[in-house]
Amino acid sequence: MSLLAVGSVAFDDLATPFGRRENILGGSASYFSLSASHFRPVEVVAVVGQDFGPEHFKVFEGRPIDLGGLAQVAGESFRWKGAYGNDLSEAKTLETHLNVFAGFRPVLPERSRTAPFLFLGNIDPTLQLDVVKQMARRPRWIALDTMNFWIEGAKDALLEVLKEVDILLVNESEARSLSGEHNLVKAYRKIKEFGPRILVVKRGEHGVSLFTPEGYFMASAFPLEEVHDPTGAGDTFAGGFLGYLASANSIDLQSLKKATLMGTVMASFTVEAFGTARLETVTPAHIQERMQHFSDMIFVSGN
Amino acid sequence: MSLLAVGSVAFDDLATPFGRRENILGGSASYFSLSASHFRPVEVVAVVGQDFGPEHFKVFEGRPIDLGGLAQVAGESFRWKGAYGNDLSEAKTLETHLNVFAGFRPVLPERSRTAPFLFLGNIDPTLQLDVVKQMARRPRWIALDTMNFWIEGAKDALLEVLKEVDILLVNESEARSLSGEHNLVKAYRKIKEFGPRILVVKRGEHGVSLFTPEGYFMASAFPLEEVHDPTGAGDTFAGGFLGYLASANSIDLQSLKKATLMGTVMASFTVEAFGTARLETVTPAHIQERMQHFSDMIFVSGN
Repeated sequence: MSLLAVGSVAFDDLATPFGRRENILGGSASYFSLSASHFRPVEVVAVVGQDFGPEHFKVFEGRPIDLGGLAQVAGESFRWKGAYGNDLSEAKTLETHLNVFAGFRPVLPERSRTAPFLFLGNIDPTLQLDVVKQMARRPRWIALDTMNFWIEGAKDALLEVLKEVDILLVNESEARSLSGEHNLVKAYRKIKEFGPRILVVKRGEHGVSLFTPEGYFMASAFPLEEVHDPTGAGDTFAGGFLGYLASANSIDLQSLKKATLMGTVMASFTVEAFGTARLETVTPAHIQERMQHFSDMIFVSGN
Repeated sequence: MSLLAVGSVAFDDLATPFGRRENILGGSASYFSLSASHFRPVEVVAVVGQDFGPEHFKVFEGRPIDLGGLAQVAGESFRWKGAYGNDLSEAKTLETHLNVFAGFRPVLPERSRTAPFLFLGNIDPTLQLDVVKQMARRPRWIALDTMNFWIEGAKDALLEVLKEVDILLVNESEARSLSGEHNLVKAYRKIKEFGPRILVVKRGEHGVSLFTPEGYFMASAFPLEEVHDPTGAGDTFAGGFLGYLASANSIDLQSLKKATLMGTVMASFTVEAFGTARLETVTPAHIQERMQHFSDMIFVSGN
């Protein structure tokens, strides 16, 4: 009953108004699996270079994270260098070195081909579709993340894989450019026609909007006094959201709402420190405590 | 047990991607009173010129809105001309003609000086303080709205009146420039030192954040498919929020949360049509229905 996740594992050089870190663990699959594994075992399919050492593997050890699908090949790992201004709302990409990621062709281990839950992280939609085709049977649900680079540059391939997708996770500008609609309710209607019946719009510090055929749900971000590095917040959200959904084994509106809160809580840890530092030390007790705090905050009794 | 509101009554020329309207009723006190009067009788203190005719007074008739404090003087009414781009998130001011508003010195009718609830709309903070001084006794609470123009140009006067204020309603950029803090939790701590123990941050399409000594509350905006004109949304929110608080006669966290939802629901009507057009036709049944819909949307049962 694992959650299979395809994505990137990378090294990041980050600068925010609170400091800078070089050569730290990053990549969508890293944040995703560290977050999701609190709820469901995760199998990771990604690629790293020879610079990925024992100290990096160690981050995933002792957790229900299966790295059997993490290929290590000749060359250097994917590397991203980014900087944030004072408002922390948008990263400026300074450098992107795809390195071994440029030749990444995900190959699913045999045992992963029957995974009941599949998350297609933000990679070339042609590869995302190829992963779907490698599955021995259709998963109970398929979730997908993408970005404007693919929406603008590989729209046809993206529309092809979206036909297979149940849950689409994107940010506001991606939802708008994919649908051609500024209004998010209209954007959802359009995206539903492409395939995904559930749309999750990540709005950063403004929270998350969830659109489903059963109804909508809106959640704010968890208010934090100290936000030091927003890198990985979206992937951490996706991990908490989909990890919770997989553990609930349901995608009805009630489960989706709770998953949204869980994803939001997980992301709130990530942004408190650089990279995966805070996420690595989160315990179930921390999650439970913050979830209770968040619930107290957003619910009105007597309603 | 009226709610006393000091602000502007104006004529607006508006252009949005959905059309344009000229010479329509606007101003903070118009939106505020039309919204708040669904919950509490409102007494309006404002000024208009001789161009304010019977057809304009008629909009307020048949509602518990007392215009005894609406001075009509020689000259033309305050006029604002604004335009919105495709994202509707920010108005571009094309023209501002203060006209009779330039000489506005609010004088409270005798009977208004004992009002238990006072809303100081966005006017010169020196005048806001003068209104506070005209009160025969301290209201149970005083709420205040302001803008960057005063924060930047009349900071000392603003800080002076803020000492008297219980509830501050501002948008994100105003909260940040007033406090000098980008992070809203930190901004709240700072603003609390200035006087207001309750901070309401209006975030437009992203909803509202509420900060109180008892805890925080975050509400998303009501998701609408058709948003035609955001003018007056913030003032309508303030009317629903403070009208509900006055009717509840409590500003504990529970009342503040419900007031936030009520303000959000009221604002959702305003933005569906130009100016006050939709707000004028709202019935208690509409409000109740949308409040129920909104509650269903944002609450997770079993929490």
